[in-house]
Amino acid sequence: MLPMPKVVDHAERREELAGALWRLVMREGIEAASVRRVAAEAGWSPGSLRHYFETRSELLAFAMELVVQRVTQRVVALGLAAEPRLLLHEVLPLDAERRAEMQVWLAFTMQALVDPGLRALRERAHADLRALCRRAVDLLGGSTDPDRDAEQIHALVDGLALHAVLDPAVTTPERQVELLDARLG
Amino acid sequence: MLPMPKVVDHAERREELAGALWRLVMREGIEAASVRRVAAEAGWSPGSLRHYFETRSELLAFAMELVVQRVTQRVVALGLAAEPRLLLHEVLPLDAERRAEMQVWLAFTMQALVDPGLRALRERAHADLRALCRRAVDLLGGSTDPDRDAEQIHALVDGLALHAVLDPAVTTPERQVELLDARLG
Repeated sequence: MLPMPKVVDHAERREELAGALWRLVMREGIEAASVRRVAAEAGWSPGSLRHYFETRSELLAFAMELVVQRVTQRVVALGLAAEPRLLLHEVLPLDAERRAEMQVWLAFTMQALVDPGLRALRERAHADLRALCRRAVDLLGGSTDPDRDAEQIHALVDGLALHAVLDPAVTTPERQVELLDARLG
Repeated sequence: MLPMPKVVDHAERREELAGALWRLVMREGIEAASVRRVAAEAGWSPGSLRHYFETRSELLAFAMELVVQRVTQRVVALGLAAEPRLLLHEVLPLDAERRAEMQVWLAFTMQALVDPGLRALRERAHADLRALCRRAVDLLGGSTDPDRDAEQIHALVDGLALHAVLDPAVTTPERQVELLDARLG
């Protein structure tokens, strides 16, 4: 009798690899995220990893896409009918887990400037966040220039997220919310 | 007769290496900024480079410090008695050269999260920009919470700089100024 083939949940194994990649990026930066190092961090052989991702760029794109999915799920879970303020709070790194996610995201963002395989994904995430800011401006009402206001709020949200990653003791979750809400009026 | 020793301008040679490092970071990201690659990009041997910088971290710190010096020189050249709006415009990436400088700076910023040798420099630059924002708020007057306003403007300035690097066709120099001035009131 032949041995039963092991049932493998491919989605789960891909996410396991992405998790290993995130940990490396947080500890050592994007340069540590090579096929060899990610495989070692996950306890896999490089060959097994290549069964899932043929190139480093594919692996990075998958790990980056997972960050986008997480943020999107949080916004969708809240519902688009939610208070505009709360929608925007969902994209701020308001706890340690989301701060880690944001650190990884910023590293991917810079990498996307030099890796064409990541560019489309980064541009889509940027456009989605811009659209969310525009939606918040429309829901809040009273803007004489909603495009300009959406762009300004988008820059503020990204600046706050950057500062929360760089200086979490000053740009605390409470302070992020306070500074954003002060702008939303 | 002994040959005359070649007169070497050490500051100039260090800046030459920093320039090679910047070019690599812009083209390939921070991971390309190894001693070996920077030496090759500058047309030096790794041994000659090590005469100036013993470690990669020292080389990165020097190249990062040069960015800070450039921005500081621009602000100082304007004079601290300048109109607060103009002081803050000086830190925005309002032309291709400053956009390149900002791309390199953001790469260094992320690297500083994982390289302790860069941390103090990044923190000082962050504190200096915060102080400049606070000064602008004081000069503009009329704030009921100048600390909060300075933090918010700082986040906006950094967010605009990030967007200018990521999406220069949308976050143009004119748009950066417009979005910042709209906040300054």
